[in-house]
Amino acid sequence: MEPQSPVHSAEQIAALDAADPLASFRERFVLPHGVTYLDGNSLGALPRGTAERVREVLESEWGTGLIRSWNDADWINAPQRVGAKIARLIDAGPHEVVVADSTSVNLHKLIVAALSARPDRHTVVSEPGNFPTDLYMVETALATLGGGRRLVLSPRDEIVNRITDDTALVLLTHVHYKTADVHDMAAVTAAAHAKGALVLWDLSHSAGAVPVALGACRADLAVGCGYKFLNGGPGAPAFLYVAERHHDTLVSPLGGWMGHARPFAFEDHYQPSPGITRFLCGTPPIVAVAALECGVDLHLEADMQAVADKSRALADLFIHLVQRRCADHGVTLVGPAPGAPRGSHVSFRHPEGYAIMQALIDRGVIGDFRAPDIMRFGLTPLYLRYADVAHAVDVLEEVLRTDAWRAPVYQTRHAVT
Amino acid sequence: MEPQSPVHSAEQIAALDAADPLASFRERFVLPHGVTYLDGNSLGALPRGTAERVREVLESEWGTGLIRSWNDADWINAPQRVGAKIARLIDAGPHEVVVADSTSVNLHKLIVAALSARPDRHTVVSEPGNFPTDLYMVETALATLGGGRRLVLSPRDEIVNRITDDTALVLLTHVHYKTADVHDMAAVTAAAHAKGALVLWDLSHSAGAVPVALGACRADLAVGCGYKFLNGGPGAPAFLYVAERHHDTLVSPLGGWMGHARPFAFEDHYQPSPGITRFLCGTPPIVAVAALECGVDLHLEADMQAVADKSRALADLFIHLVQRRCADHGVTLVGPAPGAPRGSHVSFRHPEGYAIMQALIDRGVIGDFRAPDIMRFGLTPLYLRYADVAHAVDVLEEVLRTDAWRAPVYQTRHAVT
Repeated sequence: MEPQSPVHSAEQIAALDAADPLASFRERFVLPHGVTYLDGNSLGALPRGTAERVREVLESEWGTGLIRSWNDADWINAPQRVGAKIARLIDAGPHEVVVADSTSVNLHKLIVAALSARPDRHTVVSEPGNFPTDLYMVETALATLGGGRRLVLSPRDEIVNRITDDTALVLLTHVHYKTADVHDMAAVTAAAHAKGALVLWDLSHSAGAVPVALGACRADLAVGCGYKFLNGGPGAPAFLYVAERHHDTLVSPLGGWMGHARPFAFEDHYQPSPGITRFLCGTPPIVAVAALECGVDLHLEADMQAVADKSRALADLFIHLVQRRCADHGVTLVGPAPGAPRGSHVSFRHPEGYAIMQALIDRGVIGDFRAPDIMRFGLTPLYLRYADVAHAVDVLEEVLRTDAWRAPVYQTRHAVT
Repeated sequence: MEPQSPVHSAEQIAALDAADPLASFRERFVLPHGVTYLDGNSLGALPRGTAERVREVLESEWGTGLIRSWNDADWINAPQRVGAKIARLIDAGPHEVVVADSTSVNLHKLIVAALSARPDRHTVVSEPGNFPTDLYMVETALATLGGGRRLVLSPRDEIVNRITDDTALVLLTHVHYKTADVHDMAAVTAAAHAKGALVLWDLSHSAGAVPVALGACRADLAVGCGYKFLNGGPGAPAFLYVAERHHDTLVSPLGGWMGHARPFAFEDHYQPSPGITRFLCGTPPIVAVAALECGVDLHLEADMQAVADKSRALADLFIHLVQRRCADHGVTLVGPAPGAPRGSHVSFRHPEGYAIMQALIDRGVIGDFRAPDIMRFGLTPLYLRYADVAHAVDVLEEVLRTDAWRAPVYQTRHAVT
């Protein structure tokens, strides 16, 4: 679909859905009646098979198998098994990815490991407006480490120039959580390597949605989220990636027993496991890993190029329709223009974005709001139709045209926006 | 029950069960037919209500509520809500406990926070043979922090004397995971405070099983496990406790966005939340927290003194029967003698403990093995009967008397022991 060629009629939208090679995946998800869900970039929808699989883990593996399931149901290898599956979505080797902890905790592990591997360097380069937890985890890791290290925040178009011989680590989120801007992973990684720095990519808004080429880019480190495009459930375990060439030299600062070379020898001294397993820490969350695996398995059934193509097509359609129908109401696009590389969500700015989003949600069109003024719409190729995008823009246009968002109820702030 | 008064007959055992005020709790758990489960100190049994509650969280809250459930189902406050419930089991204030991450990760948070609050002190005091992850987390935290700090491992009867003006933190596991020995929390805490040190108690083998008096002992810090006596499920989220008087001064080294004062303002700089919430890190694991809450709720229904009394009585019965019937086969008690303070498991030493335990498991009596030679039996007052203890000893005696453990199949080591 070219963004330059207007899509108008219901027939044309229906034709896009009819030709969608991923259309059959929609029925594999639970999607409530009357809801157009455009927040799968924040919390992915529930795969239809997850509840049954979790019931099996609870009732059969835990309830009946009890402690024996660590061996009999192979719970002990679940973090590596699901990690190897995620590896296929991000161009990593099966032994380079493991499921563990939260994205934030994994950031800490890899930030400190990287800084410890570059002890004579003093800066971490990132960008202002990066996802907050990424910056917070650097800030608090640096506070712990001391040694005069500091965080350098650079506008994204100057990042490559800010990487110096004193840079230990470059930490960037591949797809920006607000704008959907995409970093050129190959170029930034190469620039960092040219200066002897390591690069840590946060794939939270990438994995399962857009092409990621960790191996081809020779990326050093990565983390990512299980509950967005991977459909692992609220607060699902996260994953981390360490390129095999770093396995022997990088050590986790969170040396928990599950990362020990011999956890069941119960020794007094820590010795990191060989391979990616050293980046495990505590006992893995088996029920949550099982739920995540259901989401990951669905993604492995889909053709990754088809997912990327549809993500782009949904975004271009959304932007095109909004610009044609809502621009007069003060809605402006944030982030990449149609046709440019982008993540799998679309954001628009409006001074009353919060209230407008509440009015949309009230009408079954669920996106989210990011302070101070951004309305964000996630586009999940496995379970969204072109017709959903068209419907969302219909509702947005109606909310704007009728000033429906001015109702006092839509001004009330919730705990989570 | 006095250990000196032999309990012999099936009638006497039945009378103990008939008089058990906690007897009705057994049917609230899923317990497989033909299994005598003596490993609830490693993985607690499945509460009967958990599967239904998790199904509701998956299908209704996640599947239908989707992102809205962060507000509508109050997911956002789940860590504090379940923390406040656990607080009632360990003599803490409702605002002093939060559910988060794993025990290991929580150890790191509190170890580093404590050391940062005592910057001029250089030692952490613990004991050799403490649960490995506790020692590993100190070791790797000290490696990160540097500054000449070191871990002092002291035999337990000398610990109080090893606390000096240079001690920043004393880290001990309240109930020893192998021996069931119990530290005198009040005495050790007072000794540490007298020297200006902080104390961090690992309650993994205590919470939900034996009396814990954090408040009365003026304990500073604690962590604990959700999947043992709290029946939260395999790899359940852990909890942490920080006494209110430390809330303004201690800061987590894992400053994730969920511990920020204003997480949804999406600011670039970290500012810790007031109160215990600053010890959250990443997005809370909602499904796993819901499962944990089911286990905790069951414990809150039970009378805590009755739980403590039954724990003691089960242990004394177990020890008495084993000593009377198995001592001739080389089985010796490890840990506290009958009548002495103890945790809620019983351990015995035998050079062939691994094979003997495999033979027991094969016969439906499930305990576990801890290297090099310890057979460990967990005693969970909510779902074990005195008859279960008597049966376990019957089977143990038979395995020993018949040398059944010599079968080659029982020598094969599993990944998880």
